[in-house]
Amino acid sequence: MILLVHDDREYLRAPGEELQTDLGVLTVPEDVEPGDRLETHLGTEFVVREPRGPDLFDHFERTGAPMMPRDVGLIVGFTGAAADDRILDAGTGTGVLAAYLGRIGAAVHTYERDPDFADVARENMRLAGVEDAVDVHTGDVTDELDALADGPGFDVLTLDTEDASTVVRRAPDLVVSGGFVVVYSPFIEGSRDAVAAAEETGLTDVTTYETIQRSMQFDDRGSRPDTRGVGHTGYLTVARR
Amino acid sequence: MILLVHDDREYLRAPGEELQTDLGVLTVPEDVEPGDRLETHLGTEFVVREPRGPDLFDHFERTGAPMMPRDVGLIVGFTGAAADDRILDAGTGTGVLAAYLGRIGAAVHTYERDPDFADVARENMRLAGVEDAVDVHTGDVTDELDALADGPGFDVLTLDTEDASTVVRRAPDLVVSGGFVVVYSPFIEGSRDAVAAAEETGLTDVTTYETIQRSMQFDDRGSRPDTRGVGHTGYLTVARR
Amino acid sequence: MILLVHDDREYLRAPGEELQTDLGVLTVPEDVEPGDRLETHLGTEFVVREPRGPDLFDHFERTGAPMMPRDVGLIVGFTGAAADDRILDAGTGTGVLAAYLGRIGAAVHTYERDPDFADVARENMRLAGVEDAVDVHTGDVTDELDALADGPGFDVLTLDTEDASTVVRRAPDLVVSGGFVVVYSPFIEGSRDAVAAAEETGLTDVTTYETIQRSMQFDDRGSRPDTRGVGHTGYLTVARR
Amino acid sequence: MILLVHDDREYLRAPGEELQTDLGVLTVPEDVEPGDRLETHLGTEFVVREPRGPDLFDHFERTGAPMMPRDVGLIVGFTGAAADDRILDAGTGTGVLAAYLGRIGAAVHTYERDPDFADVARENMRLAGVEDAVDVHTGDVTDELDALADGPGFDVLTLDTEDASTVVRRAPDLVVSGGFVVVYSPFIEGSRDAVAAAEETGLTDVTTYETIQRSMQFDDRGSRPDTRGVGHTGYLTVARR
Repeated sequence: MILLVHDDREYLRAPGEELQTDLGVLTVPEDVEPGDRLETHLGTEFVVREPRGPDLFDHFERTGAPMMPRDVGLIVGFTGAAADDRILDAGTGTGVLAAYLGRIGAAVHTYERDPDFADVARENMRLAGVEDAVDVHTGDVTDELDALADGPGFDVLTLDTEDASTVVRRAPDLVVSGGFVVVYSPFIEGSRDAVAAAEETGLTDVTTYETIQRSMQFDDRGSRPDTRGVGHTGYLTVARR
Repeated sequence: MILLVHDDREYLRAPGEELQTDLGVLTVPEDVEPGDRLETHLGTEFVVREPRGPDLFDHFERTGAPMMPRDVGLIVGFTGAAADDRILDAGTGTGVLAAYLGRIGAAVHTYERDPDFADVARENMRLAGVEDAVDVHTGDVTDELDALADGPGFDVLTLDTEDASTVVRRAPDLVVSGGFVVVYSPFIEGSRDAVAAAEETGLTDVTTYETIQRSMQFDDRGSRPDTRGVGHTGYLTVARR
Repeated sequence: MILLVHDDREYLRAPGEELQTDLGVLTVPEDVEPGDRLETHLGTEFVVREPRGPDLFDHFERTGAPMMPRDVGLIVGFTGAAADDRILDAGTGTGVLAAYLGRIGAAVHTYERDPDFADVARENMRLAGVEDAVDVHTGDVTDELDALADGPGFDVLTLDTEDASTVVRRAPDLVVSGGFVVVYSPFIEGSRDAVAAAEETGLTDVTTYETIQRSMQFDDRGSRPDTRGVGHTGYLTVARR
Repeated sequence: MILLVHDDREYLRAPGEELQTDLGVLTVPEDVEPGDRLETHLGTEFVVREPRGPDLFDHFERTGAPMMPRDVGLIVGFTGAAADDRILDAGTGTGVLAAYLGRIGAAVHTYERDPDFADVARENMRLAGVEDAVDVHTGDVTDELDALADGPGFDVLTLDTEDASTVVRRAPDLVVSGGFVVVYSPFIEGSRDAVAAAEETGLTDVTTYETIQRSMQFDDRGSRPDTRGVGHTGYLTVARR
C-alpha cells in the first residue's frame, strides 16, 4: 500500500487501484515507488509516500479509540521491543500497537475477542504491510494461556484489556527471564490491579507511569505551552520478569 | 554480550569472560544462552539475560547524560522508525538512541564530533550487539551535509546537537518524502529555533512536544502520583517532509 | 449586588433592580438577604446569593481574558496577601485579581492604561462590592513610579503587564522589606525577563512557577484525569524584597 | 511576633524577647517596627519583618506535613474565601490553612482531634497573630455536626481529614447557599469518596483538581522546566451548595 498525498489530503491505495476524488481520477501504477508524483485527469499532483507508523494511526479503520503513537512509542522505549522479538499482545483493537511492533521486525501474536474487530485488525495489518509479522488471533487470550505457556517464551507481553491482571499473573510462564510486561489502562484502578498482580507473581521493577504531553506555541509574542491542553490517554504499568 | 543478574546486581559480560565480585568468581561459558543459571565458586547463582533496550541505558559507558528510554520511545512513536529504515543521527553521545534504532532493525548513520566519545559509542554499539547496524562516524554532521544530500534519502533524521537548526534547514535534501525529522532539545530556545528552521524550509506538521511523566504510588492508604516528582528531560520537535 | 440563581441561570442585580427573562419578571426587594427565595410573576423561584470570588470571574464584564481563580489563588498563597495589606497592582484588565484582593481586606491601588478598560474595571469593583478597597487608577504605572516610591511601601506588588520588568527594577523602592513581587506572564520570555530584573535589583527567592491543572473523571469504569486536558494560562514569577 | 532576618537566617521573636545565636545576642525592643534594623552585640545586623503567609509555612511548629502555600492559595482562589467569611475547617494539623484564612480576615472555626496537635496549632495561631480570628477546637468535627448545623451557616467548609465524606454529607446543613466545600486529599480514593458524597447530597459544580507545579530554570544555556521535578501534594475537590 502507498499513500497518495496532496496538501492535507491523503489516500491509501494499493498498486493498480484507482483514486476517485473531486481532485480528479488517477490509477496507481503497478510499479509505483515512494517519491513518485502522480497526476489526476484534472491535473492535480499527488506525491507517493510509503506509509509510516503515524500514518497507520490516521488511516487504519478504527474499532475503538486506537492507541496513540506516543503511547506506542513509550511501550517500545520501556520494553526495548526490537527486531526478532517474540511479542504477545492482547487485545488487538484497531491494531496500531501490533502494527508498529510488526514494523520494527518483531513477531507478534495478538488476540482480539471480537471476531469483527479481529477481521478489521487483519485488514489493517495488510494495509501496514505487516500481515506476515503480526498474527491476529480471534479469541480471548485468557483461554489460551496454558497453551501459550507451553511454547517458547515471549520477550514482551503487552496488554490493553480489562482483565489484564489475569494474564499478568501468568507472566512468569509466558515471558523469558528479563522480558517485559506492559499494561495499558485508562483507569487508575486497572493500573493498581495490574501492579498488585505483577508484585504477587514476583515480577520486578514494577512501575506505573502517567504521561502528560503538551505541544508548545511559538509566535511573535513569545513561547508557551499550548493553551488548549492535552488530555489523559492511559497509564502504562511496566514490569520485568 | 549477556547480562548476569543476581537480585539488584547486574554485570555485562561476553562469552568466555570472567566475572569477579564479592559474590565469587565465574567464567561465562562460550555457549551461554539466555535463561541459563551460572554459579560462582562461592555458590551464588546468576541468571543469564539478553540485554534489552533499557539495559543499554543502565550499562552503557556514559559520555554525558544519555537519552532516557521514554524519549527514545517517543521518537520511535512519533517517527514510526522501523526495520530497514535508513536513519541519520547526530550527535551520538552515549549512543542510547542509536542503539535502540539499531535494535529495531534500522540502518543508522550517527555522527559524533568528539573522537573519544565516538570511540566509547562504538564500544557501546558492540555491547548492544548492533555494531553492524549502527555506523558511528567521527565528525561534525554539518560538514557532511552536501555529501549526505547526494546519497539516497534517509527515512528519519534525529538530532541531539546544539546546532540542530543548521541540519534541519537541509532536511529537504536529506530526508525522503514523508520522512521525519526530530530535534531533541533540553531548552525552549533550541526548540524554538528548530521550529523556525523547519517551517522556513517547508517541512510540515511541525510540533514541539513537552512530556511530563510521573510514576504512581499504590499502597494501603490509597493511590496517588509520586510525591517525588519527575523532572524535565528535553523537548521533542517533530516535523515531516 | 446579589446573585439570582435558578439552576444554571445566574443574574447579578442590585436591590431595587428588576430581572426580566423568559422565566418571568421580578423586582429585587431593597432589603433582600442571601438565602432569600424570590419568585417571578410566572412562578419561577430564584435563590439569592452573595457573589463570591469565582462569581466575579463569571460575571464581570471582560476587557480581555481575565485571570483565572486558580492563578489569583496562587498569588495569594505565594505572597500571603492578607487583610490590611497595601497592594500595588498593574494592569488591572477585567479586575478579577484586584477584586479578590479587595475582598480579602487589602487596600489595592491598581493601574490600567486604557481609559475604557479602567471604566469597566471600576464598574466591576462596584459589582464586587469592593469599590472602597480597590482604587482603579487610569494610567501607566511606569509613569507613577517616582511618586509611588515616595509613599509608604506596599506589602505586595502584582504585575500583569508587558513591561513588568520595568516595574520590577523599582521594587526595592516600592515594596517593604519582606514584601513580595509577582509577575504573571503568559510567555516564557516575559518570565525570563522578570527573573533577570528581579535578580539584578537584588530581590531574593526568585522563582518562576508553571502550573498544570487537570480535573479528574470518576465514573463506574474507574478514575482518571480528564481526557480533555487543561491548557496553559500563565507563568507566575515570585520574588521577595 | 516579628521575624529577624540576616541572609538565609530567620528567627521569629516577640517584642521584648532575646535572640541568642552564634551571630551574637540582641533583645527585640518593645516598640519594634517592620523595617527596623537591629544589631547583635557582635555587630551583626538583622532586618525586622512582619511575618507573612509563606513565613508561617516555614516557621510554624509542625505536627505533620503542613499544607503548602500553593494549595492554600488554590483553596482561596476556588472558594473566594474573603474577609468576614465564616469558615469551618477540619482537621487543623499544623494550621497553615487556618492561619492564612485568619490573615485574610475570615472568622475560622477549626477542629483538631489530637489534643497535643491542637495545643501546637493554638500556639501557631498566636505566632501568626491570628489567635482572635482562628478558634482552634480540640475534638472531632464529626461529633459536633448537629450543633454546628444549628448555628448560622458557614461560607466555606475546608476539610483535610480522612473521613471528610462524613462531613461533606452534612454540607447542606452547614454551608450557606452559594458557599463552598473543599476537600484536600492526598489520595485518589479519598477524592473519589468526596465527590460521591458531594453529589449524593446535592452539591453542585463538583470537581476534583490535580495540580502539577514546576519551577523554571533560566541560565545562559536557555530556559527550561526544572530537571528536579515537583511532586504530588494532594487533590482538591471543590463543590458548591
